[in-house]
Amino acid sequence: MPTQGTASKVRVSADDLRALVSGIFAVRGASPADADAVADALVWANLRGTDSHGVSRVPRYLELFDKGESAPDAVPTVERRRAAIAIVDAHTAPGPVAMNRAVAEAITGARDCGVGWATVRGTVHTGAIGYYTSQAAVAGMAAVGVVAGVPNMAYAGARGAAVATSPLSVAVPAGRHPTVLLDMATAVMALGRIAQLKAAGQELPAGAAVTRDGEPTTDPALAAVPLPAAGAKGAGMSLVFELLASGLAANPIVPAYHAGDRHHRQNAFVLAVDVSAFCDPAAFASSVDDTIEAIKALPAADGVAEVLVPGERGYRSERERGASGIPLGPKVWRELTAAAEALGVAVPTPISG
Amino acid sequence: MPTQGTASKVRVSADDLRALVSGIFAVRGASPADADAVADALVWANLRGTDSHGVSRVPRYLELFDKGESAPDAVPTVERRRAAIAIVDAHTAPGPVAMNRAVAEAITGARDCGVGWATVRGTVHTGAIGYYTSQAAVAGMAAVGVVAGVPNMAYAGARGAAVATSPLSVAVPAGRHPTVLLDMATAVMALGRIAQLKAAGQELPAGAAVTRDGEPTTDPALAAVPLPAAGAKGAGMSLVFELLASGLAANPIVPAYHAGDRHHRQNAFVLAVDVSAFCDPAAFASSVDDTIEAIKALPAADGVAEVLVPGERGYRSERERGASGIPLGPKVWRELTAAAEALGVAVPTPISG
Repeated sequence: MPTQGTASKVRVSADDLRALVSGIFAVRGASPADADAVADALVWANLRGTDSHGVSRVPRYLELFDKGESAPDAVPTVERRRAAIAIVDAHTAPGPVAMNRAVAEAITGARDCGVGWATVRGTVHTGAIGYYTSQAAVAGMAAVGVVAGVPNMAYAGARGAAVATSPLSVAVPAGRHPTVLLDMATAVMALGRIAQLKAAGQELPAGAAVTRDGEPTTDPALAAVPLPAAGAKGAGMSLVFELLASGLAANPIVPAYHAGDRHHRQNAFVLAVDVSAFCDPAAFASSVDDTIEAIKALPAADGVAEVLVPGERGYRSERERGASGIPLGPKVWRELTAAAEALGVAVPTPISG
Repeated sequence: MPTQGTASKVRVSADDLRALVSGIFAVRGASPADADAVADALVWANLRGTDSHGVSRVPRYLELFDKGESAPDAVPTVERRRAAIAIVDAHTAPGPVAMNRAVAEAITGARDCGVGWATVRGTVHTGAIGYYTSQAAVAGMAAVGVVAGVPNMAYAGARGAAVATSPLSVAVPAGRHPTVLLDMATAVMALGRIAQLKAAGQELPAGAAVTRDGEPTTDPALAAVPLPAAGAKGAGMSLVFELLASGLAANPIVPAYHAGDRHHRQNAFVLAVDVSAFCDPAAFASSVDDTIEAIKALPAADGVAEVLVPGERGYRSERERGASGIPLGPKVWRELTAAAEALGVAVPTPISG
């Protein structure tokens, strides 16, 4: 399916894009490993087709570094409080640096105890959290990831931004099939996706956002606050995610925000479940495959070409973009190359565009 | 707000209703403790105002006993596979019996390791799962509960019943305020609630259900299959809940259902998180209170009297119905008393009606 505006896009190989982003972070003070970690997480989002969470966010990180809200060279510290749990204090390190550490700690807990939980305190922009849960799946774990952030979404029954579009990701390793990977905002539509439609001047679907005054709108110019998915359900999920992620991190965001503290920060948790502690992993993988196949064999609804399972579309995008490069809009490419040139980082030659 | 049909309802005290239900289960072969456990879980749902998950389900349990799909005297067995995890095999015991054991096992794991997970294999009707997570909250735990069951809900893009309305509950203990208790189906509207509207001949809201042929409908007589909450999000949550609950229990339901095996069964998991392993519980409770108060202080949307947090409505119902009794519709009361009389169980005198 041709994407609107493809003609004006450049296409860059994933490797080149990783090197470019890593170079920018390294010059800004990240260790080579941390620079690579951020680059890999962002480029993964682009590979998966979630461009709203990809390299378009690089300028935002640089802004957070400039404002002192994130430190590119911060080294997360870890406290293992009990055998299955760890608290990773990010000390404002970029999200991927802190979240990778949390994945590793959650896996350690799960290997020892069957399940492991890592809480992340005080990071910034974590990107697409499916990146982290799918890493755990590669290690044979089922995984759950949740991120809490600064309120930017409406709450059922209230006016204005009240809670965050806090995402939930669940990854379940399969056998013949790719990992089942749910990765969803608690909003009808993620803020980054709304921003994309605003930038393109495209109309929003009904029920996705309200104006600054709380009026429903489909006008991209007027849409200000995304609405929670399924009303009270999405709002309630976001609220309990804040309590679990930020409360257990002793770093509550929602009450501070409404008291006037609006600086950017995120908390999170990752739960890893060691499949091999419950049952034979091969039998488990086979049951996941059977479930996927039962769903995909269902009769499709009118106008639907194919029934998809969570993560399937992203997996196909990853294969396609991995082979033929990642399409980037002119604004994203311009901002990235400008940042690179200002920092003396080599800009790769696009495959096309 | 007066409920439609209040005039024709009887009102029974929670204690009398528990004794009635417990008596029925005891005569059918449950141990006194198990009979009380089922009665307490069902009456709790009525107290909380979730009548669709309350004592109206007693005839369904009796039917499952008659068909041999549930054994009232089954004794769940527990395998603690690693320090933080346990598998509770229900051996078809009624949901509350198996789920209470799972809560206890999850709490044991959490006390030892920081988090604890209990998988339940092969139970039947678990009732309102908020009952179980809120028990864990009383023990100072944050808790997550998920139940997977026989497909009865549509899946995004497919026709017919594909996945279950698998509920998610999250309980977070507070301080001055009641426990924050999210308890939601992954459907727009729980099946039991649709059944209530069908029984009352009341129109369904748009987008809640489709006909047997997959056509959208608001006609209670034609509504056959509930739709997932937020489309692909609710459908995806239900699917990964099946993989986590049933897959780890080595008892997959979705592929078996689509291969023709439609006997009633449920799997579940309960995750307990020991707040005291992460931070000072009093400080945690205070941050939960602050968050609740920040949300409740938000300006209400047009036509909304009060901004509510998850579980608040249920808590108020519990206080009101605990004091003045539980209103039961004539059909529910008739079925309960008929079952009691057939089994020689004393029927209490209603408070009114």
